[in-house]
This record gives sequence, C-alpha cells and structure tokens, in this order.
Amino acid sequence: MNVTQADVTNNPTGKGGRARMLISCPDRSGIVAAVSHFLHEHGANIVQSDQYTMDPEGGMFFIRFEFDLNDVEVELPILVEDFTRVADRFQMKWHIFRESRKKRLAIFVSKEDHCLLELLWQWRNGDLDADIAMVVSNHPDMRSLVEPFGIPFHHIPVTPSTKDEAERKQMEVVAGKADLIVLARYMQIISPKFIEQFPNRIINIHHSFLPAFVGGKPYAQAYTRGVKIIGATAHYVTEELDGGPIIEQDVQRVTHRDNVDNLKRIGRTIERVVLARAVKWHIEDRVLVHQNKTVVFN
Amino acid sequence: MNVTQADVTNNPTGKGGRARMLISCPDRSGIVAAVSHFLHEHGANIVQSDQYTMDPEGGMFFIRFEFDLNDVEVELPILVEDFTRVADRFQMKWHIFRESRKKRLAIFVSKEDHCLLELLWQWRNGDLDADIAMVVSNHPDMRSLVEPFGIPFHHIPVTPSTKDEAERKQMEVVAGKADLIVLARYMQIISPKFIEQFPNRIINIHHSFLPAFVGGKPYAQAYTRGVKIIGATAHYVTEELDGGPIIEQDVQRVTHRDNVDNLKRIGRTIERVVLARAVKWHIEDRVLVHQNKTVVFN
Amino acid sequence: MNVTQADVTNNPTGKGGRARMLISCPDRSGIVAAVSHFLHEHGANIVQSDQYTMDPEGGMFFIRFEFDLNDVEVELPILVEDFTRVADRFQMKWHIFRESRKKRLAIFVSKEDHCLLELLWQWRNGDLDADIAMVVSNHPDMRSLVEPFGIPFHHIPVTPSTKDEAERKQMEVVAGKADLIVLARYMQIISPKFIEQFPNRIINIHHSFLPAFVGGKPYAQAYTRGVKIIGATAHYVTEELDGGPIIEQDVQRVTHRDNVDNLKRIGRTIERVVLARAVKWHIEDRVLVHQNKTVVFN
Amino acid sequence: MNVTQADVTNNPTGKGGRARMLISCPDRSGIVAAVSHFLHEHGANIVQSDQYTMDPEGGMFFIRFEFDLNDVEVELPILVEDFTRVADRFQMKWHIFRESRKKRLAIFVSKEDHCLLELLWQWRNGDLDADIAMVVSNHPDMRSLVEPFGIPFHHIPVTPSTKDEAERKQMEVVAGKADLIVLARYMQIISPKFIEQFPNRIINIHHSFLPAFVGGKPYAQAYTRGVKIIGATAHYVTEELDGGPIIEQDVQRVTHRDNVDNLKRIGRTIERVVLARAVKWHIEDRVLVHQNKTVVFN
Repeated sequence: MNVTQADVTNNPTGKGGRARMLISCPDRSGIVAAVSHFLHEHGANIVQSDQYTMDPEGGMFFIRFEFDLNDVEVELPILVEDFTRVADRFQMKWHIFRESRKKRLAIFVSKEDHCLLELLWQWRNGDLDADIAMVVSNHPDMRSLVEPFGIPFHHIPVTPSTKDEAERKQMEVVAGKADLIVLARYMQIISPKFIEQFPNRIINIHHSFLPAFVGGKPYAQAYTRGVKIIGATAHYVTEELDGGPIIEQDVQRVTHRDNVDNLKRIGRTIERVVLARAVKWHIEDRVLVHQNKTVVFN
Repeated sequence: MNVTQADVTNNPTGKGGRARMLISCPDRSGIVAAVSHFLHEHGANIVQSDQYTMDPEGGMFFIRFEFDLNDVEVELPILVEDFTRVADRFQMKWHIFRESRKKRLAIFVSKEDHCLLELLWQWRNGDLDADIAMVVSNHPDMRSLVEPFGIPFHHIPVTPSTKDEAERKQMEVVAGKADLIVLARYMQIISPKFIEQFPNRIINIHHSFLPAFVGGKPYAQAYTRGVKIIGATAHYVTEELDGGPIIEQDVQRVTHRDNVDNLKRIGRTIERVVLARAVKWHIEDRVLVHQNKTVVFN
Repeated sequence: MNVTQADVTNNPTGKGGRARMLISCPDRSGIVAAVSHFLHEHGANIVQSDQYTMDPEGGMFFIRFEFDLNDVEVELPILVEDFTRVADRFQMKWHIFRESRKKRLAIFVSKEDHCLLELLWQWRNGDLDADIAMVVSNHPDMRSLVEPFGIPFHHIPVTPSTKDEAERKQMEVVAGKADLIVLARYMQIISPKFIEQFPNRIINIHHSFLPAFVGGKPYAQAYTRGVKIIGATAHYVTEELDGGPIIEQDVQRVTHRDNVDNLKRIGRTIERVVLARAVKWHIEDRVLVHQNKTVVFN
Repeated sequence: MNVTQADVTNNPTGKGGRARMLISCPDRSGIVAAVSHFLHEHGANIVQSDQYTMDPEGGMFFIRFEFDLNDVEVELPILVEDFTRVADRFQMKWHIFRESRKKRLAIFVSKEDHCLLELLWQWRNGDLDADIAMVVSNHPDMRSLVEPFGIPFHHIPVTPSTKDEAERKQMEVVAGKADLIVLARYMQIISPKFIEQFPNRIINIHHSFLPAFVGGKPYAQAYTRGVKIIGATAHYVTEELDGGPIIEQDVQRVTHRDNVDNLKRIGRTIERVVLARAVKWHIEDRVLVHQNKTVVFN
C-alpha cells in the first residue's frame, strides 16, 4: 500500500532552495525522530513542521515539513532516493515537492466569471504561486477575458449527446499539462474516468455550506429554508456528488431581506474567497487527504 | 383568516409606558400611513419602526412598531379596541404587547446544563427581560442548580411507555403559566398535540448548522463529514423534526485536530449564544413567522 | 439649519418608478404619521421603511423610505415641492432620490489595483448600481486596466511641489461629473478645500480596523503589535485623518505565522469587500450621517 | 540567557502519562532532529508537534511537543535532567510540563461576574483542565457565588491609601499557591512588583479590540467613535497598560442601534469567550512569548 512520489524534475536554475514533504502513515513511536534525523543527515534545515496524530493508539500520523537545502538540484534527488528506506520502514505514503516547481493549473469554468477572475487576479498579483496552464470552458464567453492574460483558452462545448467526446477532448488538452484541475463554477458533472486521472487533484467550489444544500440551486434552497447564514465549500471531487473531502468553508450572515438574487451576490464573494484559499493551500502542499477528510496544515 | 390578539392585561403600576405592535398582512398601498396615523391619533409616539415587504407586487407586508403612551393603562386598551377597524380593513394578523408585561418562560432541559445556565445567568443579570416561571426536566439533575434561583423545578420522568402520561403532566404544569417554552437541550421529541398548544412559541436549540445534520448526534456527523465550520440553530418547533422556522444561527471555525469531544465543547458556546439571542428576540417581540420562515427585526 | 435637496432631474423614460427618502430631525411625536400620510396622499406606496431614534426623549430621529409612484416623472417633482411644508414643520434635513438616477462615481487610485478592480468587476456584473464616471490616478499604471471598460482615465501626477495644482485639476475633472468620490487605496491626503466640495461624499478605505492603527503602514503596525485579527474600515473623509464617520468594517483572523506580506495579502480581500459594501450602501441611499457617526439602514 | 524549568513534581499515581515541551531558541540547522532524536531515545512517543520559525535566516525558532511515556514518574525526571545538554547546545529557553500536574489558577475579580462565572462553569464542566485555587476580590460581592463551588474566596479591599498593603496581602495569599493569575474583569492596576512575580503568567481580559480603546470605558469610547464591530482582547500583563502580548481576540458586529449598554451586554459574551480560550491555551502550554508577541500553537 506504500506510495512513493517525488516531484523533483523540471529544475530551474539556482542552487539553494526549499522543498516540502508530506507524509501519512500508521502512527508508531519514533517517526518524527527518524524523519528529522534523516533530513538533518541530508543537509536539510527544517524551517516549518506540523504534525497531527489522529489517535495516539493505533491511529494515523500526518506530518508536513518545509526544509531548505544548500544545493537543491544536487541534493534533493539523492534525498528522495534515500528516503525510500525510511518510508518503507514506516509504511509511509509520501510526497516531496520543490517549491520552485510551480504547480500547473487548468481552470474549468462555465458562464459565471467571479471565481475565475479571483484566481486570475491573485495569480497576476503574485498571491497564487502557480502556473495557470489553461482555461477550459463549455462556453465561449470567457475567451476575451482570459486571453489578454496570455493564458490559452479551450472552448469545448458539452451537450448531453457529446458529453463523452467532450470529456475525451478535455483529457487530451490537460494531459501532461496540468497538476491540478480547478472547477471554478464549472456546471457539468465530471465523470469517474476523469476523476481517477486526478485523484484528490480536482478542486470544486460548491455554492453552499455543505453538507447543507447538496446538488443544484443551493441559493434557492437556502432561501426556501430561511437560513440566517449562507456559505461556500471547496472540496476535492470524488464520485459522490458534492461529497468529497472538504478543504475549506466560509460563511456570511444574511437576513430575511435577502432574496435569492441577494444570496447569489453575497455568495459570490464567499465562493471566490473560499476557492482561492483552497487552491492556495493545495499548491503550497498543505493538504493531506485521509479517507474522506482533509488535514490542512495552514 | 384574521387573528386578533392583544396582551395588555396584568398591568403593573405606573402611567407612561411602552408597547410593541407586530403586523403581517398582504401588501397594499397605504398601510404605513394608516397605522402610523392611527397611532398618532391615539397619543402614541413611535420610537422605532421596521418594515419589510416581501415583494412589492402581491407579496406580504410586515411591520413592527415600538411606541410610548402617556398613560398606558388607560390608553392601551382603547387603542387595542379601536385598532380592530384598521386591522380588518387590511386583513392584518396583529399583536400588541406591553413591554412591562414580561413573558413567562418554561425552560425544558435534560442533562446538559450549559444552555439552561446561560439563560439563568442572563436573566439574573437583567439581560433577559422575562420571568422564568419554571424549569421542567426529564431528569432530576438540575434541581439543585435551579432552586437557588428561586425558580420552581418540575421533574417529570419520560420513558417510552410513559411518554403520553409525561406529556400530559408537562401540559398541566405549564398551563396558564408560560408564554414561551424553551427547549434548552431537551432531548425528547415534543408531540404534535403539545406543539399545537404553543404555535411558534416553542424555541429549540439544535446543535448543528441546519439543515446540515438533522436529527441525532450532529457533532459526530460533523466530525465524520470533516466540515471546517460547525454551528447551532435556534428555531421554532413544528411537527417536522428540526424543520421549523429558523430564528438564529451562528458558527465557529474548527480544524482537523478537533475530535468529537472538542466539537461538542466548542459547540456548547455557540449553542448558548444562539439560543439566548433567539429567546431575547422572541421576548422583545422582534420575530414574525410567515409560512416556514422568520422575519427578525433586530 | 434645514437643508433641502431633491435629486429628481435626469429623468429616464418610463412612468412608474421607485424613489428613496432620507430624513434626519429632532425627535418629536407624529413624524412617522405625518410623513407616511403625506406619501400616501401623494400616491406613493411605501415598500420599505427603517426608523431609528437615538433617544426617545430629546434625541435625533432618522428614517428612510423606499416608495413607488405610478408616474414618477410627473408625480415626484410635485411631491418634492409639497414636502417642504412637512419638512419645515419638523426641522428636517431631507433628501429624495430617484432610483433610476444612478450616482456617478469618480474612483481615485494610486498603484494598488485590488479595490479598483473589485468595484469595476461588481459594476460590470450589475452588483453596483452606479455609473463609473472616471478613474483618477496620480500614477499612469492603471490606464490600461481601466480604458478597456470604456471608462475615462485621468492621470494627474502629484508631487509635494505640485500638490495644489494637482488638486485644482482633480476638482476640474470631477466638477459636475461625480456625485461620489471613492478613494480606492488613493495614497494622498485630500485637502480640506476638496473635502468641503464633497461633504460626506468621499469614501475612503483604510487598511486597518480603525481606530487602531491610524495613519501609514497599518499592516506593519499590526504585525508589530501582534494582533490576532486584522481589519479594514470604510469611512467618509473629513479633515481629521482616518477620523471620519465609519460606514463599514470587517475583519479576518490571523496568526503568529503571518508576516507583514501575508497580512497585506489577507487584508486586500477585506479591503475590497468592505469598500464595495460601503459604496453599495451609499449609492442605495442607506447611509445617514449625524455628527461623526453613521446610521446605516441595510 | 538560558532558562531551564521543569515542572515535574507533584506526581499523581499511575505510570503512563503525557508531557508537553515548549522550546524557544535562535534558529539553526538540526534542532528538530536533535530534540526528536533525544525524545525517541528516552522512550517518548511524540503525539503532536508544532513548529514555527520566524525567519529562516537568523530568526527565532519555536517548537511544542506533546509526548507519551510508559512510566512518566520514573522516566520524566531523567529526561528532564538529560535534556540540559541538548538545551545548552542550542541556547534554548525550555519548559517541560506534565499534563497530569494541573496548573493552579488564582482568579481576580471586581464587581462584574460574567468572566468569573464562565471560568467556573467551564471548570466544573471539565472544559478547563486546571485547579482553581482561589478567587481574590476587592469587593465582597462574589463570595456567595464562589464558595458553593468549594473554592476559597479572599476579600482584599483596595483603596488609594491602602493599595500597597492590599497588594502585599494579595501576594501573600497567592504565594506558592497559584501558577497563573487571571484578571477576570479586575478593575485595579497591578503594580510592577506584582507583575515581576508572575512574568507572562498574569492574563487580563480587556474589553476592547486592542490596540483600539486602550484604558478605561472602552465601550463608551467605541460608541463615541461609531465603530461597526466591537471586540475583546486577552493579553499577558506587562508594565505598559493594556500593552502586553496579545493571546487572543474576538469580535462581534454591532450597529448604530446599539447604545453603550447594548455594547456592554454584547461585549460580555465576547469577553467571556476570549478570556476562557486564552486561559485554556495557557494551561495547555500552547502559548510562547517572544518579545511582546505570542506564538499560539492551538
């Protein structure tokens, strides 16, 4: 059941540099000691560490390290190779990421632009440390908004009869070009086949405080129920609709005066903020998934 | 369909005094003018008014007035009697309340004391302008806590086989003595028969952000789902479990580190605050119910 | 001391229409009755009203009405003219606004684009019911961002030696063309002479939770003090630096991990949201100013 | 400048047990490795660790460990003694605490009971893992509230002329009996002499969102300034009035309708919650102080 992954290729110039390590494994004594000793031996200076143990007796152990190396290009591949022994000993699932190797995002969008724009602004502003590889949409509307940013825009229409073909095209354009799919108000269901290509690497923004108001028209549902607070939820996409691991949620107070249009307007700001936070945490390797829940080291 | 209610008996001494008026009716032109003219004619000085119209064309109209009279004992009964003409003209559901006529609360509780204590403390502190007529519990545990406040405590055990009999006793002790039933973590289902005695006058605190996690063990449900925010909801009790009109909700951020016990502990503070706010708004006549939703003029 | 203002010119086509009325005056009996009777007599259907009395005995009275007329073009001028009698009787400061007469905004900005972009995006999206008449900046950077929206951009450089001349030019470009000045992170002090041209019609966003951290570099101040929550404040500009009436504030939780750059990044989202809310409330005529405080009917 | 402290006496029965370790030191390579290796060697299983480095190059390093031992009574004293070598090597300030050795609280209070009651409830409820050693007050009012909990109550009146004598008595009653002083709305200034007895071990609740509204009558100040959000701040007491390291803050939205009494009422709930959180974090050894700021590992 061990998974080994090291994402240390695609090396920019420069010697010193930071890397991040994410580990999940069954808890037992000595893990922190073993890993921190290993890192120290390999010349890594730990600048941040966060640990969480689900249950001291027989639970899961999660840890995230950020560390600096003097010559990341030479040292990191060795570190990665050597780490296998430690990982095997503790049955670890682990990932090592170079900070300078930015994650490549493919943003999927339909007709509403607010979540897309938020990501584009934050990215242009330097607040989102990623490459936006492309925007994919089932509608042509966003092309004129996206292309001035110098980002490729793929219009792939989706109709009930062409759904399979459309998804094939989507997989084609993202293949080898995206590390993370962001559904920024993309109003189509993603098939299991697509999802299994990107396990815990598709982030969706759902416009309700899940698990309240699963499915369509959550603001209309919220209005009908008369809730006093509305919210939005960013989660990894799994086969269960709106049922994947929650990364982030936030809420805003509303009143009886707010009709459905007001709820949508207020909700747009929540959606933007929540999605941007979740994407930021993912690309900074702060999120671990265990079963259907996330551990977020933020 | 018009309902007329005026709660102007039980007159304390003193002449001047404040009253509150709540009105719901189908919207049409001239309502504010008619009512404010009426109040002015009857010597009332309006010190606060809040209006909400659901939909200008053919919707419902809601208004709340607070007004002062020079001699409330003499003037209010006349005002109430005369208002019938205005009310009939506009098909109003209306209530007039004297501020000095405090609402009488019966607090129902089981084994958890935090919501009860919050209400007792706010009441003793003068923050809850009501009389606490009694505490009713299916367990004896709270007696020693309640009686030092000089409040009658009724222990009415409830078992599956004695449920009907227990409820009969409950109705007996509250009959004519309570204007509002507060379920302060009372862990028994209230029967439709009891509910119809107190329409929109039973407030329950549910320990989740409804409609998420209806029913039992909401903190365990929240933990399992991995939500990042938990909440509590105060609502009027209707026949549908946890489905009545929501009066108030609030939330608190949690993390993956919070186990079910932590969620319960954090939740207790939210529950206390939310229930106390809802009770306060009810006793200050700030809540109108229309269909399954509330208009809260706070 | 009475001020009479009615902004009912600039009439678009169409007959029916909505207007808003804001009134401040010393409290006394009969105001609501007199005004609502007056409106009813003049064919106005009140669709929303909000009242606040500072202190029942001898305080100030504030009210806001929204009302519909059948033929706003014919009826509103008459209503405005006739209202003078009512206003005089109660020593009212009052304003009547037609909803269809959008307020014209001049947005002042320096080098940071986030607040400007938020306003442009909300405006394009239909969430900000105003005309953006122009953007004025002491730097040329935003021109390429603004002009694609079809909005005039005025670059008016400001240096210590040219400050007076620059402000003269600013007054020239806004004269007769702007109802509200929005300082969307405009990093220059506005002179008293400019301010008196736009009393309570210049909104500034200050990047702290005022009155904490008045003046420059509030995020650096917040970092040094070690606060656990940061905020932003939208206020009307008066001669006292960061001392004018507060319209809206909001906050976000931060931790010891957040350095000054993080605080700035987190703060940008708060600033955007708070400024946009304050502008929205102003252009919907929801804000009254009394002495150095606001009454916000939202 | 190294400080060594180990609080491992006062041993309850039982063998296994948890301990916590807090370390601050100048950052350099190898600290995590050295400490976690040391702990592993000494039979400790790390169940939680949190690290924060202020600035990778030349900043401060902070870490908190929770760990379990098989026989805490035998092993912990050895571990503490041996740790000196590691600590010296890295110039560490460090503390080791046994979880079972509860901190002893002396709560100081004047006439307002809400913060005191919150702490008493949470303590009785098991949410505050401490011993409440005593309540000290300059007024007699709280005696009847405190003594039923079985907690000693010391009434030590304070007048301008007897202030020194009163403080001498206070120091006498707390000497050797309290690990933490909690000022639960204690309305007297604490002298520098008292403060130096309890460095970073006196927690005060200030009823404003510091640094706004330092000093007396913060709610009146907030009302006058017209803020839209009020708050409370828990901080360690230093010689500078309301200027010590902030542990926790929280806020609540208010409106123009809220007069000073309302602000006080709303504020009481914020104060209670904020103080209880800060005390909880302190007694769980989650707070480190560096210069005038806190690192809170919660």
